[in-house]
Order: sequence, then C-alpha cells, then structure tokens
Amino acid sequence: MELTFLKRFDENPLLTPADLSPTRDDLHVACTLNPAAVRFGDEILLLVRVGEAIAAEADYVAYLYFDAETGQLDVGRYRKDDPNLHCPDGRGYYYRGRMVLSSMSHLRVARSKDGLRFTFDPAPAIFPANAYEAFGCEDARITFIDGRYYITYTAVSDRGVTVALASTSDFVTYERHGLVFPPYQKDVAIFPEKVRGQYLCRHRPYQSEFNPASIWTAYSPDLHCWGYHEMTLAPKSDTWQEQRVGCGAPPIKTPRGWLEIYHAADRNHRYCLGAMLSDLEHPERIISTSDEPVLQPQANYELEGVFNNCVFSNGLVVDNDGGLTVFYGAGDQVCAAAKTTVEEMTSAAMNK
Amino acid sequence: MELTFLKRFDENPLLTPADLSPTRDDLHVACTLNPAAVRFGDEILLLVRVGEAIAAEADYVAYLYFDAETGQLDVGRYRKDDPNLHCPDGRGYYYRGRMVLSSMSHLRVARSKDGLRFTFDPAPAIFPANAYEAFGCEDARITFIDGRYYITYTAVSDRGVTVALASTSDFVTYERHGLVFPPYQKDVAIFPEKVRGQYLCRHRPYQSEFNPASIWTAYSPDLHCWGYHEMTLAPKSDTWQEQRVGCGAPPIKTPRGWLEIYHAADRNHRYCLGAMLSDLEHPERIISTSDEPVLQPQANYELEGVFNNCVFSNGLVVDNDGGLTVFYGAGDQVCAAAKTTVEEMTSAAMNK
Repeated sequence: MELTFLKRFDENPLLTPADLSPTRDDLHVACTLNPAAVRFGDEILLLVRVGEAIAAEADYVAYLYFDAETGQLDVGRYRKDDPNLHCPDGRGYYYRGRMVLSSMSHLRVARSKDGLRFTFDPAPAIFPANAYEAFGCEDARITFIDGRYYITYTAVSDRGVTVALASTSDFVTYERHGLVFPPYQKDVAIFPEKVRGQYLCRHRPYQSEFNPASIWTAYSPDLHCWGYHEMTLAPKSDTWQEQRVGCGAPPIKTPRGWLEIYHAADRNHRYCLGAMLSDLEHPERIISTSDEPVLQPQANYELEGVFNNCVFSNGLVVDNDGGLTVFYGAGDQVCAAAKTTVEEMTSAAMNK
Repeated sequence: MELTFLKRFDENPLLTPADLSPTRDDLHVACTLNPAAVRFGDEILLLVRVGEAIAAEADYVAYLYFDAETGQLDVGRYRKDDPNLHCPDGRGYYYRGRMVLSSMSHLRVARSKDGLRFTFDPAPAIFPANAYEAFGCEDARITFIDGRYYITYTAVSDRGVTVALASTSDFVTYERHGLVFPPYQKDVAIFPEKVRGQYLCRHRPYQSEFNPASIWTAYSPDLHCWGYHEMTLAPKSDTWQEQRVGCGAPPIKTPRGWLEIYHAADRNHRYCLGAMLSDLEHPERIISTSDEPVLQPQANYELEGVFNNCVFSNGLVVDNDGGLTVFYGAGDQVCAAAKTTVEEMTSAAMNK
C-alpha cells in the first residue's frame, strides 16, 4: 500500500540523459538523477548528479576515474571473461571483491522559471578534483545558512565512500571545504538553522556485520567538525524499510516538528520514500514516521532504469502557500517530481 | 623477517584472565588484553580490556549484552544446531549475517610500581552503560592534555562499532563525553598536543567494497567534534600489512617527527606491529614506515589464544632516559610487554 496524496508531475521525467551533452566526445551521459533543490532568485535550481561513462570495448569493461596525480580523467579496464570480475547490477564492477563504478558522477545545475521545464548549465558545478572523488561526486543536499548555500555531497573513491562540503553564494563559483565525515558515510543533510546553539545534520553510517544502515544525527560548532553522534532511525524488520534507511533533503521546520522525507530499501533493495517528524529542540528524537511509504516505484521511469524499482529524494522546495514539491531520482537514471503540501506530508508522518 | 631490537619481558604474559575475578559469579574472565598505558604518580597504569563470558548451555551458545532499557546485563542465546548460526573464530557468533560477541568487554585499571608486576583494581573503570556499548567497551588509548587524561575507546553494539570519549584526572572517577566518531570506526588515538592550533587524532574507518581499512587523520577544535579528515596510511599489497592497518597508542613527539607503533594484518589476518614517523607540523603526512614488522607473533602466548597469531599495541610508556616500553595484547587474550628505546624505534621507522 502507498499513500496517494503525493501527485507525480505529468511532465515526468523532468530531466533525462538526453538533455545534456557529455563533457568529452568519447563519453556518454548514463544518468541524470538525485537532484538537490533550492529556490534561487526567481528560479528553481536543481543540483543534479550527472553520471558519465565510457563505452565498453570488445573484450573489456571500462570505467572512468579521476587521477589525482595527473589531474586528468583516466580509464580502467577489466577483461569481461576474467573470473575475478563480478557485476551484480548496472551500478558498478566488483574485481576481487573491490568495487569500481560503471559511471563517474559530477554535480551540475539545471535551472527553471516554472519548476517544470529545466535547462542544464553548459558546464559542471562540482567535478571530481581530488583523490577522495576519484570515482565521482554524488547526491548533493543544499542548505541555506546565513546568506550562503552549503552543499554536502558523497565523495567516492578507492579510499572509501564519504561526504564532502562545498559552499556557494551564486551557484557560479564554489568553495570546497574538504571531507566533513570519515568513510563509510552518505546522506548528510545539514539543518537550516542552529538548534540549542549548534549546527546539526543527519548522516548515514553504512551497515556492517553488527548493524543495519540507519539515520544518525550529529552536532557541530562550525559545519566542518562533527560530533555528539546519536542513532536516530533504524530499519524495521519485515517492512518496506527493512534493509536500510537514509535521510533525504534538509529538514523543514514546521510547528509540529522537523519534517523530513527519507528513503528506505526493503530486502529486495526496492527504494521507497517515507516521512518523519522529529522534535524541534532535540531533532535526534523522532516523534513519528509514516507506517506506509509516501512514494514507491510505480511509474515506468521508476520501475526500470540503471537500478530498477527505485525512488530517491534529496531535494524539496516549499512554496509560500505551503505547497511542497518533492524532486527525486527515479530508476537511478532520471529526475522526476511530485507535488503535495507541507500539511499533508506532516499528517502522513503522523499517520493521520 | 622481523627486526629484533625489541626485547620481550621475561615476565610475559604480564596479565592473564587468572589475575582477576569476574564481575558476577555466573561469568568467567575470557581475556585481559590490549592495554592502554600511562605513567601516573609513581606507578604505571594499564587500562586493560577485560572480556567476560557466560558458559555455553547444552544446546545453545550464549552471549552477554548490556540492556540499556533495564540497565542490566542480559544473556542472548542461539541454538547450536541452527543453520543460520556461523562461528568463524572465537571472537563472536554470526546469526543471519549479523554478529554478536562471545565476550563482553569492560575497561579496568591494573597498577604497578615496577612496571613488571601489575595488580588489577577490584572494580571496573569503564563498564558498558548505554545502548552504544551493549556489546562492550574495548581497546582504550590514553592521552594526557592540560592536566586531564582523555580516554578514547571502542564502543560496540547492534548500532555499530565506533569510538567514545571519556576523561579522568585521577583514574577513580570518569566523565563520559559520548561518541566522537560515527560507525564504523576504531583505533582513535589523540595526539598529546595541538598542532597548528587544533587537536588532532588518528582514526581507522573500516574496509568496504571500495577501500581497505586504513589509518586516517582528523582535526578538532574541542576534542568532541572532528573534521578535515584525510587518509594517512593504506595497506600495502602482498606484504605483512596487506589486509588492514590501524593506529596504536598516541604518537610520541621526537625531533625527527611523530613516532607511532601501528598494527597491521596480512591476508591471513596475522597481526604484526610496525613503526612510522610523520611530519611534526603536518602529521597527516607520513615521512617513513618500517619495511619489516617491529614485532610479530612468535612467543607461544602470541601464537595461540582467543585469536591466534596476534600482537596488538595501544599503550606505550617513555622513560626519562629515552627507554620505550611497548605494552601489547597477545593472542587476543593476555597482556605482554617489550622494551626498546625511542631512538631505536625511530631508526626502525626510517629503516636505518
């Protein structure tokens, strides 16, 4: 069952790989997904993850990476018939148990006046630029604090998967602030204001032999250094959120608590979205979560893609009248959106 | 090959499970290992990890855990013939791919006037006390900063494996400061002084499908919140440090750089110790590491134990005359020590 108050745009998918050119002639755009979203002037900006790939060769699979020593992109190869090679799905290749990605992502702005028709900027906003980003920059969140936009994004490399911070005031030039978490971490969303005198964020340590992948909360004096970690929301056995949960866009402040839309995967790695409400003064404490998904893969662009059966949101926009647009990646391949209100989503989080 | 300048104490092992009573009559002490070490007044104190276990029952394996809701220890059980149960070594049980530990650790002080004969305090120093420590408190490091002893230790639970901070001025009462890293993290050692205006530490994110377990460096304004993460030392293929590396005791300042003794495991999970030297002003930069181990499992108490073929150090003491005592866990079961000088260890790190 799924709650049905969230209406998909008729224009979906809003952005697809056909909407932009690759950064090099020998590459192709494999996916345009998982947009961060922000209102900027009279436009809505999406900071889209754009994945580029190089064509497989006759006897080889090939993957792109950024070589920090040369400062250039390079291509790695594995023989297709090598018994050490293993490809469980379209997202990457395992070689002797170590993974590389089939596409290398960067972050690029797409702009829209009406929130329906978006146009990509001609150049990337944040492109892999150091050893921690060798396999790509993915899944941004944007938080506006004191006149500046802070961008957290996943940095992937053979050093691990973790989260870097950048900031901008104009979405033209960007300042990089380095890694704000150690591996293995993803899904960091910074709250739009301090709570009890500190910045705070959600983060998502990965699963291990001891624990499932859960949503955590951390505090910071300066946005760079994070501590006071607490687990906030764990997966629930035998449900649509059994395998892992992770936070989405930065939380929205409402009179009833901090409202968030998070993602969850079941035992078959089917990704849905859920809603949760947490305490205004102690956001590490959950008030309520939606028993049912607020969005689950249903449209053809959600059911089939680079990764099937997947909706994933890390970008929301709230209108002055309380309208809420949920931007989301679908099938790990395209950008889509759906519309509701803050009031409806809050009710969903409270199961009312 | 092993460097031979480090001399094992004739008195080894210094501490064994026979040297103390369990905290409850129905438990037994399974291991006394991996001591932090510090000079305190006219004594040497070891902060030892003491692992306690409950006897297996006829048809069941049993494990201890701290129940944060009741504030009591409790016992979990799995049927020995359950096909979902898997026990790869003596350290724990896997059930449906999730792990619990065969012994629950706390931290306890052992004291010595001569550095050879140690006596355990009658009560634990730091005992599991919250949900993040449900499976135990392990492998402490002690750093003396501005009149206070800061203790980092591994907190293990079904929420993950990560690192908590405590402090004391007297090794009688302890203040807990919560988690300073998110999971999966171990082996955090704080430097004894600020560098370039910030506290800093080593830490050890765990391996994933992308990366091997490596030694990282992080900076902090306050010892609670950590950022500016950088990878410092990675495993080396086809060597005694192929599988993983992790830092040991807090670094020692020498004229040639920060001196550290780290642990490393090979592809057979045999744990050795190595020496490294890093830049005084930029400790995230390695100057040199020892090509060969400075200590490798050789004595019978190192070759066989709860986990065979293992030496692991997180405690060092330096004398006024430059003598260096390396305290270490052996076979994941007992405490041992070996002696050299700071000068010799520095030469080893520089392969001279």
